Amino acid sequence: MSYFNVENVKYEGSKSKNPLSFKYYNKDEVVAGKLMKEHLRFAMSYWHTLAANGSDPFGVGTYVRAWDGLEGMELAKERAKAGFELMQILGMEYYCFHDVDVAPEGKTLQETLDNLDEMVDYLEKLQQETGVKLLWATSNMFSHPRFVHGAATSCNADVFAYCAAKVKKMLEVAKRLGAENYVFWGGREGYETLLNTNMELELDNLARFLKMAVEYAEEIGFTGQFLIEPKPKEPTKHQYDFDTATVLAFLRKYNLDGYFKMNIEANHATLAGHTFQHELHTCRINDVLGSIDANQGDILLGWDTDQFPTNIYDSTLAMYEVLKNGGIAPGGLNFDSKLRRGSFELDDLLYGYIAGMDNFAKGLLAAAKLLEENALEEYVDKRYKSYTQGIGKDIVDGKVGLKELAEYALENDQIVNESGRQELLETIVNDYIYNA
Amino acid sequence: MSYFNVENVKYEGSKSKNPLSFKYYNKDEVVAGKLMKEHLRFAMSYWHTLAANGSDPFGVGTYVRAWDGLEGMELAKERAKAGFELMQILGMEYYCFHDVDVAPEGKTLQETLDNLDEMVDYLEKLQQETGVKLLWATSNMFSHPRFVHGAATSCNADVFAYCAAKVKKMLEVAKRLGAENYVFWGGREGYETLLNTNMELELDNLARFLKMAVEYAEEIGFTGQFLIEPKPKEPTKHQYDFDTATVLAFLRKYNLDGYFKMNIEANHATLAGHTFQHELHTCRINDVLGSIDANQGDILLGWDTDQFPTNIYDSTLAMYEVLKNGGIAPGGLNFDSKLRRGSFELDDLLYGYIAGMDNFAKGLLAAAKLLEENALEEYVDKRYKSYTQGIGKDIVDGKVGLKELAEYALENDQIVNESGRQELLETIVNDYIYNA
Amino acid sequence: MSYFNVENVKYEGSKSKNPLSFKYYNKDEVVAGKLMKEHLRFAMSYWHTLAANGSDPFGVGTYVRAWDGLEGMELAKERAKAGFELMQILGMEYYCFHDVDVAPEGKTLQETLDNLDEMVDYLEKLQQETGVKLLWATSNMFSHPRFVHGAATSCNADVFAYCAAKVKKMLEVAKRLGAENYVFWGGREGYETLLNTNMELELDNLARFLKMAVEYAEEIGFTGQFLIEPKPKEPTKHQYDFDTATVLAFLRKYNLDGYFKMNIEANHATLAGHTFQHELHTCRINDVLGSIDANQGDILLGWDTDQFPTNIYDSTLAMYEVLKNGGIAPGGLNFDSKLRRGSFELDDLLYGYIAGMDNFAKGLLAAAKLLEENALEEYVDKRYKSYTQGIGKDIVDGKVGLKELAEYALENDQIVNESGRQELLETIVNDYIYNA
Amino acid sequence: MSYFNVENVKYEGSKSKNPLSFKYYNKDEVVAGKLMKEHLRFAMSYWHTLAANGSDPFGVGTYVRAWDGLEGMELAKERAKAGFELMQILGMEYYCFHDVDVAPEGKTLQETLDNLDEMVDYLEKLQQETGVKLLWATSNMFSHPRFVHGAATSCNADVFAYCAAKVKKMLEVAKRLGAENYVFWGGREGYETLLNTNMELELDNLARFLKMAVEYAEEIGFTGQFLIEPKPKEPTKHQYDFDTATVLAFLRKYNLDGYFKMNIEANHATLAGHTFQHELHTCRINDVLGSIDANQGDILLGWDTDQFPTNIYDSTLAMYEVLKNGGIAPGGLNFDSKLRRGSFELDDLLYGYIAGMDNFAKGLLAAAKLLEENALEEYVDKRYKSYTQGIGKDIVDGKVGLKELAEYALENDQIVNESGRQELLETIVNDYIYNA
Repeated sequence: MSYFNVENVKYEGSKSKNPLSFKYYNKDEVVAGKLMKEHLRFAMSYWHTLAANGSDPFGVGTYVRAWDGLEGMELAKERAKAGFELMQILGMEYYCFHDVDVAPEGKTLQETLDNLDEMVDYLEKLQQETGVKLLWATSNMFSHPRFVHGAATSCNADVFAYCAAKVKKMLEVAKRLGAENYVFWGGREGYETLLNTNMELELDNLARFLKMAVEYAEEIGFTGQFLIEPKPKEPTKHQYDFDTATVLAFLRKYNLDGYFKMNIEANHATLAGHTFQHELHTCRINDVLGSIDANQGDILLGWDTDQFPTNIYDSTLAMYEVLKNGGIAPGGLNFDSKLRRGSFELDDLLYGYIAGMDNFAKGLLAAAKLLEENALEEYVDKRYKSYTQGIGKDIVDGKVGLKELAEYALENDQIVNESGRQELLETIVNDYIYNA
Repeated sequence: MSYFNVENVKYEGSKSKNPLSFKYYNKDEVVAGKLMKEHLRFAMSYWHTLAANGSDPFGVGTYVRAWDGLEGMELAKERAKAGFELMQILGMEYYCFHDVDVAPEGKTLQETLDNLDEMVDYLEKLQQETGVKLLWATSNMFSHPRFVHGAATSCNADVFAYCAAKVKKMLEVAKRLGAENYVFWGGREGYETLLNTNMELELDNLARFLKMAVEYAEEIGFTGQFLIEPKPKEPTKHQYDFDTATVLAFLRKYNLDGYFKMNIEANHATLAGHTFQHELHTCRINDVLGSIDANQGDILLGWDTDQFPTNIYDSTLAMYEVLKNGGIAPGGLNFDSKLRRGSFELDDLLYGYIAGMDNFAKGLLAAAKLLEENALEEYVDKRYKSYTQGIGKDIVDGKVGLKELAEYALENDQIVNESGRQELLETIVNDYIYNA
Repeated sequence: MSYFNVENVKYEGSKSKNPLSFKYYNKDEVVAGKLMKEHLRFAMSYWHTLAANGSDPFGVGTYVRAWDGLEGMELAKERAKAGFELMQILGMEYYCFHDVDVAPEGKTLQETLDNLDEMVDYLEKLQQETGVKLLWATSNMFSHPRFVHGAATSCNADVFAYCAAKVKKMLEVAKRLGAENYVFWGGREGYETLLNTNMELELDNLARFLKMAVEYAEEIGFTGQFLIEPKPKEPTKHQYDFDTATVLAFLRKYNLDGYFKMNIEANHATLAGHTFQHELHTCRINDVLGSIDANQGDILLGWDTDQFPTNIYDSTLAMYEVLKNGGIAPGGLNFDSKLRRGSFELDDLLYGYIAGMDNFAKGLLAAAKLLEENALEEYVDKRYKSYTQGIGKDIVDGKVGLKELAEYALENDQIVNESGRQELLETIVNDYIYNA
Repeated sequence: MSYFNVENVKYEGSKSKNPLSFKYYNKDEVVAGKLMKEHLRFAMSYWHTLAANGSDPFGVGTYVRAWDGLEGMELAKERAKAGFELMQILGMEYYCFHDVDVAPEGKTLQETLDNLDEMVDYLEKLQQETGVKLLWATSNMFSHPRFVHGAATSCNADVFAYCAAKVKKMLEVAKRLGAENYVFWGGREGYETLLNTNMELELDNLARFLKMAVEYAEEIGFTGQFLIEPKPKEPTKHQYDFDTATVLAFLRKYNLDGYFKMNIEANHATLAGHTFQHELHTCRINDVLGSIDANQGDILLGWDTDQFPTNIYDSTLAMYEVLKNGGIAPGGLNFDSKLRRGSFELDDLLYGYIAGMDNFAKGLLAAAKLLEENALEEYVDKRYKSYTQGIGKDIVDGKVGLKELAEYALENDQIVNESGRQELLETIVNDYIYNA
């Protein structure tokens, strides 16, 4: 059975009536020393793509899916088949999932784990048949009511233990399915009000939990990269993994740095008051750029819209950071993107993914050219040249202190600065985008 | 004497080292039935370009200008010369100013008006020599301490009278210099706290003031278009002209609609929680799209950054609305844009204006092509086709009420909707941008 | 059967261990000429109180309710009983509901209407037994997938007709149950993207729909007040009823002013960038203050949290506007407030309502005293006294124009202003709150 | 000469016409083991109080001051006298200043330092005469154009050196005047655009600079506490010291933790998306709560309004954190608060300070009572009791890993949580505020 009809997919609004296709991704040139697809390690998000239904806080689901009406394990398997078909149509080599995306919860924890085992067998087979790989796995510890007060940061120790069981299992699954990464997103790890919260204990417990995960991964030989995904708020009023800097402060406090990198999501960055590029850049210079959740938010809205990414500035500057990072592997570009509630037809999945993938392909082309031609870097290097010689070099080399510098300054107190040229640099970026 | 050295203006950060130039504006094709420049009625903002110094709430001015050190009328004249030189270099045909931008305030109101008269003579001569025209004039009623509690909405009637004198004079100036529009931006027309405010009286007074201006314009035969510029906040906590809808409510309440259109600023739109396109679109369907303040904000910041506009999405969708509006004349595209504090060199004015002008030229090309090929409209028309026939037509034609519709609905209660296709439409816009 | 155990309700966190009780509402003094409860026309929101389950976009419901497990009409009736019991415990005299809150949707529209009829009989009986009255009724036209693209502003005329049937029915229900108001909140009346939207047609259709409702109400003799509830965004990216000013512009354009007042919600005000007081004040001076949805948002979050209102500043300033308005009747104070997801026990409903009701009672006491002692008004009157005499009176009386004022200003150009005293006025408000 | 007329200060808007006075601060009870004033280490901010003029980005200064018209060192001395008079009237024992607040810049760095020396002599004398002490000193490295691209993070090494000279001098001044703290607020330490920024080098340089300051303080024997003041943005687009967590990440990366605590400002917290309490709490549990900049922002505005703090919730919860911290010494409560532009009269300084000081006194009384009666803590302790016994204690004690916990969870998978009681706890806080 086939779920998707590629023939239906065309630009209805365009004179040209061409089938929707990859205009940039299909170039598949060698850029920055690699084939484009080697840079663009795209992944399908199982939850948004296969399990979501388009509901929002004011309305029930709208999505029309071929698997509507099915239940339990039968539903789970049809979704899996549809997902792998979609990835093959799109030429997408990776996927990502939470435990509950792929298998239904049972009445007991044991039953839940058993359901998962059955589906992992099934996914393993699909992986083998298609060559699709698992970019990352994770455990959903935010949807069920038991996580109402947190998961590893719950005020209830039984919840902490329950989470331990889930993560233990998913680490085993990750190992078995060859996951290249394992993600921690703490949707309920935060607080609703400080009035009822022991934040110190909760953070200590979060560190304890992560340490246990590191130890168990070592014990079973899971060698994938561990990732933490920052988000500042939603669903909770405040989430502990607010942004990259906050997570770095946490990891360094508990001596967990070295074990975790970041999974940066565009929409989470903007909710924290940062640009997507800022978060990627901050990761890069701290050597913790692990993976990317490729989507976009609506910056005039205050919640996580998780839209398919179609903004060329975001994709260009994201790929710029990725290239400067030496690539994103073993991470990738996971489309943590959901169709709008109004884009409820199955074909919209094709439109959405193609839009996002091609936008990142175009962004890669622009970023690679910017770097290749040194279009921005030459300016930046010149701007900071004073630190490569004279007093600037002495500063960097640690040869001077306040006294020596004060003496220098008394002789050099008529400062000459140069323009920062923001308007020019923004235009240069535009030029490279149009011509990539 | 020449202020600007066009030879210096080049892409320092680019391999190509080409002089910075108009890559799109210089095409000057006929699009949508007119030469590009007929659509792109660009104007220089006198204040940001000639009078500003780069100061911000935490620091004094940084801009280095050839006229630094001059004072009084001498300064005023050098600035004017520099401005007209800049417009000629850029091929810009319009400018805009507030009274206090062009002439210094005197110790008395009479002296202030006399200074203005002298400068108006001077500007008139420059207009004649260069062919540059005045897009709009306005009166600054927000900078001086006398306006601390408002201008036409001040709690002090003497301030209201003072403003009347200023606007009377500037209407005369506008007539004399052939201004095509006259703008009201009420920077202090709002409140800091409701605790000390009689908002009802203040709004009544604002309406009285605008009515007086309409009457005086008629009396002296000034036939330019009157414009109100919405802004939600800053400098006041709340400004009465919050956004287009708020101004429309006000104008309709006081029977002033018909006399005023809107001057829409991109950054003011986003401060009000709207996209730039939303405000333009709202104006268009209410027949009040008057003119545009072309700039851009930083949506992650909460104040008016007034940056030169370099975002291609904003310019494309703005020009899309302009074209659907049948053009922007007698309004124009005034660059209410200031150089960043760090872009303090004179050459940055060239970089900034070229960046903004070329971005809007590119946006015009994309918008015109979108419309010419019916790329979006065809989809939209199809989407609403149910209102052109059957029960939908009856609704539009006013032939049915709740009872008739309820009868219809009982027979037609299994609704079939179609996808809204947001992701596809966003990709179509990208395609037209790249290929414009 | 009894759902609520009043004995359980006490301050667990307090040394005093007193039962939680109304500390201010139980004073029931005469303030501002009426018994407190006559000012405080509190209403229970049926949806949040009885139908909600604590779910959010990242998790399923958490609330534990005595009626969990029931279905269909049986569930509907148990909820109704619980609601009326709660109102009696709280001494609350009003409630509000959407059609689908009280009765389940059927497979056909006819079945849905039949279910509603059955429940209206049941509610009518409960009203008679308890004396509880219906503050307002409304129709939910946002939750079902058929409203995905809007209700009266849907691109699909069949949806418009379906909505007509729903509103027709609910107007009949409102008349039968003696509703004092009828509310329109357009949760889906807006757009997700302008790219696919004919905003002009949608707004025309919205006006047509409201006109039909006005006509049908007249036809059947429903004499309740019609209310529109502004909200700027969520669930849609942009909602047409953005704020009070926007709705006023709309009503005035379509000659619908005079037929509709506003239902102002605190959290909707802040999402639109306004204070709660601003929206109430704007309604008051435009004579459209109809009713209040009493809740509070978290201003650091960008979505509608609908919290029970516990902030004394908000309630004091809201009641200040209500008193200046001459009361809120026939509107009231509907607690459009939901328990936090973590406050999932039945007793929390008592805690939440008592918190909100008592906070508004305290706010009423403070506001009444502020007005009785003229604590703020005396200052405000003095501040604007220049408009009661001399040139200011001439302005207000329309006796002068720009010319006369300019002459006056030339003689009176050394303006003397007085301090706005914001810091002092804020302290005065604090004093009255502490001593109310 | 006297600047302030205490007789003028009364509630003009109040029936009672009492002189404005400390209603709570004058109780000066012993609370939480100390006299109130020992907890409330209030400080006058020299810049807002004596050097500011009420200007904003759209208007020049409005404040009317007795020292208007003076210049240079004469102006500097009159301001100092007025400031010390104000502190004595208010019973305020501390003040804070930047170098350029107290002495004018000269034409050369040497002249600037000489001016400063002269004023330090003067201030030392005033301190001795009045007993007023210096809470903290700092160096302004953001106002002058030389800092346009940053101070210690400037792209220009000469600027770094200039800053070194300034900080060296101010550390000497701090020692001489007995400053109890030294603050670093990096107003220009950030970026306007990543396109021109080498963030890695800039942060390395910032760390180098702070290290030099630590070493020089040790060298000269300055033993005051070093403080960093977080702020996320404004004046720059992004500031490196975004919030407490970001600063902690930075300090831990460069091994500077242990040398610096935080100076938390209310308005900076909200600009970063946090509550004031959140930032204080985060500091407290990381043992870096150093000092407080007491003010408040307008959360609906996106810039730093620096209002005098009059919100009782903020002051109560702030003092709650201070008391749980064991006090704020050697830090204090510096009113980094400026009068509104419209509160331009000298008397407003008295109104503003009394408003702020009394609000914090009331907040202290409420917080102390909350703690004394264990009103919140009892609930919190009970909420987390599962970590004091059984499996929870094993988790805290590090006795279990994922395997042991998974075994436990399989036996204990039917989780029972309890309500988080947010609504109740908020009402308890209200009760304590009203009755403090």
